[in-house]
Amino acid sequence: MASDMTPAREASLADLGLAAAARMIARGEVTSEALVSACLERITRTDREIGAFAWLDPNHAMEQARAADRWRRTGSGCGPLHGVPVAVKDIIDTADMPTEYGSAIFSGRRPEKDATCIAALRSAGAIIIGKTVTTELALLTPAATHNPAAPGHTPGGSSAGSAAAVAAGMVPAALGSQTAGSVLRPASYCGVYGYKPTLGLISRRGVLLQSHTLDTVGVLTRSLADAALIVDCMSAQDPGDDVSYLRSQPNLTGLAGQPPPVPPALVFLKTPSWNDADTRLHAAYAELADALGATLEEVDAPVLSDIIEWQRIVQLAENAAYYGPILDRHPDQLSDGIRERLVAGSAVPVRTYLEAVAAREAAYARIEALFTRYSAILTPAAPGPAPKLEEGITGSPIFNGLWTYLGMPAVSIPLLEVDGLPLGVQLVGQRRDDGRLLRTANWLEATLSANSNAS
Amino acid sequence: MASDMTPAREASLADLGLAAAARMIARGEVTSEALVSACLERITRTDREIGAFAWLDPNHAMEQARAADRWRRTGSGCGPLHGVPVAVKDIIDTADMPTEYGSAIFSGRRPEKDATCIAALRSAGAIIIGKTVTTELALLTPAATHNPAAPGHTPGGSSAGSAAAVAAGMVPAALGSQTAGSVLRPASYCGVYGYKPTLGLISRRGVLLQSHTLDTVGVLTRSLADAALIVDCMSAQDPGDDVSYLRSQPNLTGLAGQPPPVPPALVFLKTPSWNDADTRLHAAYAELADALGATLEEVDAPVLSDIIEWQRIVQLAENAAYYGPILDRHPDQLSDGIRERLVAGSAVPVRTYLEAVAAREAAYARIEALFTRYSAILTPAAPGPAPKLEEGITGSPIFNGLWTYLGMPAVSIPLLEVDGLPLGVQLVGQRRDDGRLLRTANWLEATLSANSNAS
Repeated sequence: MASDMTPAREASLADLGLAAAARMIARGEVTSEALVSACLERITRTDREIGAFAWLDPNHAMEQARAADRWRRTGSGCGPLHGVPVAVKDIIDTADMPTEYGSAIFSGRRPEKDATCIAALRSAGAIIIGKTVTTELALLTPAATHNPAAPGHTPGGSSAGSAAAVAAGMVPAALGSQTAGSVLRPASYCGVYGYKPTLGLISRRGVLLQSHTLDTVGVLTRSLADAALIVDCMSAQDPGDDVSYLRSQPNLTGLAGQPPPVPPALVFLKTPSWNDADTRLHAAYAELADALGATLEEVDAPVLSDIIEWQRIVQLAENAAYYGPILDRHPDQLSDGIRERLVAGSAVPVRTYLEAVAAREAAYARIEALFTRYSAILTPAAPGPAPKLEEGITGSPIFNGLWTYLGMPAVSIPLLEVDGLPLGVQLVGQRRDDGRLLRTANWLEATLSANSNAS
Repeated sequence: MASDMTPAREASLADLGLAAAARMIARGEVTSEALVSACLERITRTDREIGAFAWLDPNHAMEQARAADRWRRTGSGCGPLHGVPVAVKDIIDTADMPTEYGSAIFSGRRPEKDATCIAALRSAGAIIIGKTVTTELALLTPAATHNPAAPGHTPGGSSAGSAAAVAAGMVPAALGSQTAGSVLRPASYCGVYGYKPTLGLISRRGVLLQSHTLDTVGVLTRSLADAALIVDCMSAQDPGDDVSYLRSQPNLTGLAGQPPPVPPALVFLKTPSWNDADTRLHAAYAELADALGATLEEVDAPVLSDIIEWQRIVQLAENAAYYGPILDRHPDQLSDGIRERLVAGSAVPVRTYLEAVAAREAAYARIEALFTRYSAILTPAAPGPAPKLEEGITGSPIFNGLWTYLGMPAVSIPLLEVDGLPLGVQLVGQRRDDGRLLRTANWLEATLSANSNAS
């Protein structure tokens, strides 16, 4: 059922995963210079067509790589991402590169400081190679990026460039962010892994804020292990972010790699959007359910349509508050879609908004009850494969927004395809138990791969 | 300048302070039965006129007192409030008494569980003697309670009964709550101490919610030491209240009693409401400023009028959200004032509301900068003495709401009077440093008392 979504391309160091590359650099088997240079070569060759990068200075990247190699040769020890390039969605502040939010209004904007998560990546040794294209202000207006795994189709949004860069083998990992479905949907469309951790695991300080209730930093990678590793490097409590929480240092990499103590049971939540999804998706999921047999139980969960609506209301109203000043100052430089959206958000009654916020914990308590029986929720990552570019949309986050609202960790795993187009399977875990979610995701992948080898 | 505001009354055990009473009970110098009985006698004698209690069952109170005495005689050890009666504002849930929110809509409402702060008081050994009158839904419509320290005047609101009960010597301490100025203003009007701790020090679980951003449980007592003691007994992190914060166990009682390490400097913030305040208040504060000399520096602080407006917006909008369902179900059983208020709150634009919430941390950072030079902010606790009952108002919280919005700890100290009417001095401290605030308040009281003895 699963297959390699990546179009044929010449083998290169750029195809190394994050963990593998870091290991090889630490052992001296490859230099950061060689790795970054291979990535830059891939970018030079393909990005004119793909359009994943919003800003990239090869010299600056190579300088960072050479500095990493010099550091390593001093014998001073290497961080877990030493010398490995990472790309960053252009709504996350970088002190050495512009951060322009995908909007002409912020053209040339240079933050003074790195976002907290960027500073964490740099301490882990990562090379910030460049900034990836985001849709305008991380909302729904499509960017010009193409989908490397599905030519002629959208890569999704808003983390369009990050998903495309990883899918095209330009970088082993990239940062994205999700307010409704902006990490998991592009991951699904581009045939890569998307991981949105529990709200509060990664600090949002220095990241464009469109909704304090929902915004979550996430990652795009080519393996679950790489997703765990890069999130491990960024997770730390930050008193500067209200949703950040105190905890013992998680070691997702270690947890994710362990076999489950008992065979996991998964709960299949079709959610109220199921009937509107692509019929090819229905067929693919029927096949998946067959393959999983009794491991997967379908359940009708309560309050899901309310949750979808609450997420919509919260995002709309908070968008209007955070982007309202931009609308006031630069009405002509916003797209019609965003202008209309901000006007609609301003009209949300305050009571409706506050009820939508207040409903969250009780709704989560009802969903959380599922985790006494199940290791993870299984549900589509998107309503179908990537829409065609000419449709002028980035696809719908309808299968993602409810989990973002609930602050639950979620991954998209590139397990399915229809008509040669990638289709992710979304697994959703219990809040603050990202390790169990990733372990279950690993197990699912291994199980399906064993099945398919056996058949 | 300061004088005893309490009208002449027969000496009684009911006049003992909280700490003194607890100490005497622990030593066996007085029984809880005798103490509670003295309080009940005072209540019987005076509450027909004052109207401080919404619910009181003398038998139930006496049973608790006798149980406390039996327990003590077993030698099992006494909590810090063992056998001492405390009265509770009727918006705080008590499992053994009704909690009716000052509204006929909730007549006969019996909560299943104690509020977290009530459970904490009971573990400290306190006797919950009864429920005190609150204004309707803890808002601005006056209750029928009279001011024992200023006959013919309002006790203020919304913690009207709690302030009156303490002022009349019915109980040594009572719980109140403050969303704008509902603890400090009645304290000022009734000539008692009011203390609103840092937001999050006392859990709000089981307390009627009218604004999650603002609602704060506070206390009314007849000394600063008693205020420190009762808050010590209730402060504990509660994962069930989002604003509750993790900290080492504070010992306010110990801290408040220490002499300041250096002589405190106080900053006098008249705030934008100063010019609208009673001219008699202006004269009293001029006298106070004279007495304090160089210790008190007047400063023009920034953003204060914005803060006043933000508090108003947040309270109005959140009121509408939390009380909206009551308005929907029982429109005819709400007073006109509340109905109008809820309609106005529903009309607050969501963007205005969210901006008011988002502005808080930056505003606090600017105010907090004062604490590098000053130990506390000094400002009136109310715009003047208590208004007359016939005015049909509970007075204005205009001098309190801004500190509630900022989540800062504040006390009202009964230091002034005009025309025989009490007038509190408000001291405001740095967030999460309630100990320093109370220590400074103690120092201020001692300094003024030494001055007045010397003159």
